[in-house]
Formats: sequence, C-alpha cells, structure tokens
Amino acid sequence: MKEIKSVETLKEFLGTAKKRGAVVGLVPTMGYLHDGHISLIRAAKKHAGKNGVVVVSIYVNPLQFGPNEDFKKYPRDLKRDRRICMDEGVDVLFLPSDSEMCPALDGPNAMTTFVVEEKLSALYEGESRPGHFKGVTTIVAKLFNIVQPDFAVFGEKDYQQLMIIKRMVRDLNYPVKIVSVPTVRDQNNVALSSRLEYLKPESREMASILWNTIQKARDRVATRKSILTWRLRDKLMRYINRRKNVKVDYIAFFDSQTLEPVREVKKGTHMAVAMYVDGVRLIDNAKL
Amino acid sequence: MKEIKSVETLKEFLGTAKKRGAVVGLVPTMGYLHDGHISLIRAAKKHAGKNGVVVVSIYVNPLQFGPNEDFKKYPRDLKRDRRICMDEGVDVLFLPSDSEMCPALDGPNAMTTFVVEEKLSALYEGESRPGHFKGVTTIVAKLFNIVQPDFAVFGEKDYQQLMIIKRMVRDLNYPVKIVSVPTVRDQNNVALSSRLEYLKPESREMASILWNTIQKARDRVATRKSILTWRLRDKLMRYINRRKNVKVDYIAFFDSQTLEPVREVKKGTHMAVAMYVDGVRLIDNAKL
Repeated sequence: MKEIKSVETLKEFLGTAKKRGAVVGLVPTMGYLHDGHISLIRAAKKHAGKNGVVVVSIYVNPLQFGPNEDFKKYPRDLKRDRRICMDEGVDVLFLPSDSEMCPALDGPNAMTTFVVEEKLSALYEGESRPGHFKGVTTIVAKLFNIVQPDFAVFGEKDYQQLMIIKRMVRDLNYPVKIVSVPTVRDQNNVALSSRLEYLKPESREMASILWNTIQKARDRVATRKSILTWRLRDKLMRYINRRKNVKVDYIAFFDSQTLEPVREVKKGTHMAVAMYVDGVRLIDNAKL
Repeated sequence: MKEIKSVETLKEFLGTAKKRGAVVGLVPTMGYLHDGHISLIRAAKKHAGKNGVVVVSIYVNPLQFGPNEDFKKYPRDLKRDRRICMDEGVDVLFLPSDSEMCPALDGPNAMTTFVVEEKLSALYEGESRPGHFKGVTTIVAKLFNIVQPDFAVFGEKDYQQLMIIKRMVRDLNYPVKIVSVPTVRDQNNVALSSRLEYLKPESREMASILWNTIQKARDRVATRKSILTWRLRDKLMRYINRRKNVKVDYIAFFDSQTLEPVREVKKGTHMAVAMYVDGVRLIDNAKL
C-alpha cells in the first residue's frame, strides 16, 4: 500500500496507473474506519477489478462542520485506519493536508470557490446543519478533480449526501460513476458511524431507537394503503418520547429520488431520522 | 474538423486522442467569433503542439445572463464561426445543446448545483451583473469536466473573468492550465467584442472612449508617484462626460492579482472600465 500526502505525488502515481489502463476507484472518508467503511472498500475493490487501483482518502473536512459542531473532537486513529486499509488491500491511502485541501478561510490565500447544490441541500440534514452539504460537495469536487477516479463509493447511511453527490455529478458533468453501498449495522441494528464512539458503552444499545422507529413506521405502512405524514410522525414521536435521553431532531418522509417531502407515507416512501441519543447526534434512513 | 454536438460523442473522440498521448486544449466561446477569438485559437494551436487537439466550444450560456440582459439578441452566426474554425485548423467544434449543458431551470430535472466564487465575483462586473460569474464558473466547470482539457485559453479582455477562473482552478484543484491571451483591438483601439455588433457603424468609433480613458489614466500615473483613486476617477469622469451618449457603469482601480480595490493608483495598478456607448455596454481593462 502506498501512503501519499501530497496532491502532486498522488497525481504522478495515478497518472502511471491510468496509462496502463487501470480503473481507479475512490473511497472518500473522514477516517476512524469501521465495518461500514470496510464494506465501501470491498465494493471498491470488486468494482475496480484485478488491475484496478483503489484510493481511500482520509480527511476530516473542516468545511462540512458547523461552528458549534464536533470538528475538533471528531475521532481520529490513523494507526488503526492504516492497518485496516492494508488488510483490505487498499492500493493508495491518500492523506491530504489542510494546506492543500483547505487553505486558510480568510486572508489573501483563502479559498473562495465552492460547489453548492441549492435544492436538496436545504432539506433535512441541511436544515439542521446549515452549510454542511456545501462543505461536502466542495471537498468531494476537489477530490474528484485531484484523483479523477472512474468511480467513487458512498454509503447509503448518508442517503441525502449520496443523492446530493449524484445530483452534483449530473449537473456538473463529472465523469465519475457513483457506487452506493448498503448501510452496515451492528447486532442491535444500529447504523455504524464513527460518532458512536461518543456514546458511553452502556448507552450504545439505546441507539437502536433510530432503527426501531423506522421499523415502527414500516409496520404501519405494511398494512395500509397510505397514512398521512403528520399522523405517522405523531405516533412515532409518542413512541420515541417514552424513552429517556432521546431527543428527535427530525423525522422526514420523502420521495427516494427527488427527496421531496410527501404528504402521505406508503410502501416505498423513504424515511430519514436524526436523533440525539444521550446527547450524541445520530442519523439513519431506509426505504419503507 | 470534427463537428460534435453530444457530450458522449465528444468524450469518445477525445478518449481516443488522449490514449495516443495528445495534449487537449479548450477554447470556450459564445460564438460570433472575431479576431480576438482567433488569437485565442492560435494560442491554443501553438500550446497544444503538433499532435495536440484543439476544441473550440460555442455555447451561449443562459446562466451568465441576467433576466434583463441580452441573452435572446446575443449575436449568432454558426456558418461564419464554422468557416473560421476550419480556416484556423480547429480540430473539434463542440456545439453542446441546452438539454445537455443546462436543462430546465425549474421542474424535477432542473439544474441545482453551481460553482460559485464568492469574493472576486462580487466586485466590478459582478456588482453590475449579479449572478453573472456564477453562471460563468458553473459552465466552465462543466466544460472542464466534459472535455478534461490539459489547458484552456481565456482572453485578457475579460480580465476579472480570467482571474476568477484561475481562482476556481486553484480552489477546486482542476487539473487544467489556464493560458491567457492579450486583448485584440481594432484600428481605433476598441477591444474586440461580439457586442460591438449592436453598435450602429457610425457609433463604432465612439467606443474608443474606453481605451482613451485608460490612456488618460496611464498618462496621469506616468508622471506621478501615485494619485488618490477618487481624484483620478473624478478627472476621468469629467473627461468622459464631455461626450454625448456615453454613460459610465464603473471605473475601477485594483491590484492585478487580488483584484482588491486600491486607495491610491500608481504604475502597475490595474484599471477596468464599463461604459454604455450609445446604449451598448462595453468593457475594457489594462495594467497602467
């Protein structure tokens, strides 16, 4: 495995690989890798094929964190990440520096160009985290321009992000195929996330409330033609509010493709939830 | 010369060229080609070298026109443009369709992702034409993603645009070299522009007021260490206001690199002007 820090070195390395016709796949991450990331890497290895090159980038992107969010305390463990990437047969571990990815935010060298998706980014996660998706699309665009991958892999756990990246690729004609990978869950059906690290071990099981809420909604629509959104949300809120130390941020029901909120929920409607479990913000989603 | 309308066909064609190691150069235009464009094309031919491929794109980009601007009446003459490109040895004339470049602005298929440079774009031309540079950077980003050129050629006539494109390339890590070409002028020193077409032939000479104003400023700073910006602007306004049918939009003095306005003008300060000559909006700029 090559470990590369500079954009220039990466380009050189990939230039040679591309010349011999290698398919290049990118797995953009913020590190602190878990089984969810491993499934992204495995999908990338499979998709790239025998002579392909899989690049895993680790960059905790300051642009996608709000001023009161957890940028500083976001968990990091490069040693473990490196070991995982080696075990998984990653070809390049790309560790770009702040000075190349995101120079000063003010001053004469400040970054002043951004990629902004204006519609889908305003909903749900975007409403709760203003500027979040602008940070995501900008950094992903930069990674696409640096790596120029044939494909890039994203998890369905961040479903709205996945759809926004797909929209960006379509709107800006990026020559990159987006490969999506199903959410990986633990034995309690908690969607894996680096932020679970913030939970006390004894609270971890509480996090299953996100999946249980989705199941509750799924049960409801399974036996009905449809149900009014506000009515279903009401029922779910009552279900959640019975728990201590769980606070709902949003429960959203929308069209899987357009992300437009729906007035009536039925089988096939997409559901996304964000909750604070013991003070830790977690998200999950599924097609009902 | 290949004339190509679809993104897919262009990619196929360029894919083959790149495989044999050809350097690819892009000259993005809105058509109605004049000697200024020809000098861009010649620079591209030279820069691409013997085995290179020069792509000229013609696309009148609706995104960069304001609602009250001249999008509809912007001059078009494909027959003449085609002839010019053939004469100049252009390899590919790329004529993308609205449906590929800029699908509906509302509705489910609307484009919702844009590339926005937030600082330089707010000044001068951007102040007079809100949204203009957002349209420019977005379309140029799309063309870069479609063509994936090794270099792209822009004229210094649109100096602010040139600097914004360079900033975009730096901020988003586009692997594209930006080549700039000096402004081409007619016998009266009028900077060539497709919009000169709007002038009655008898008003064309009046357009030299832009260059003459720049010369006036140049004369002023040639003999002084510096001059206060407001004082110089005042003098120039008086000079211009002696003419009939000329209205100043802006006279700006700024640092060539940062585009920051200066309080004092001296040799080397950059100057840009926008004026309505007989109702037609024209721009020019130069380093003093």
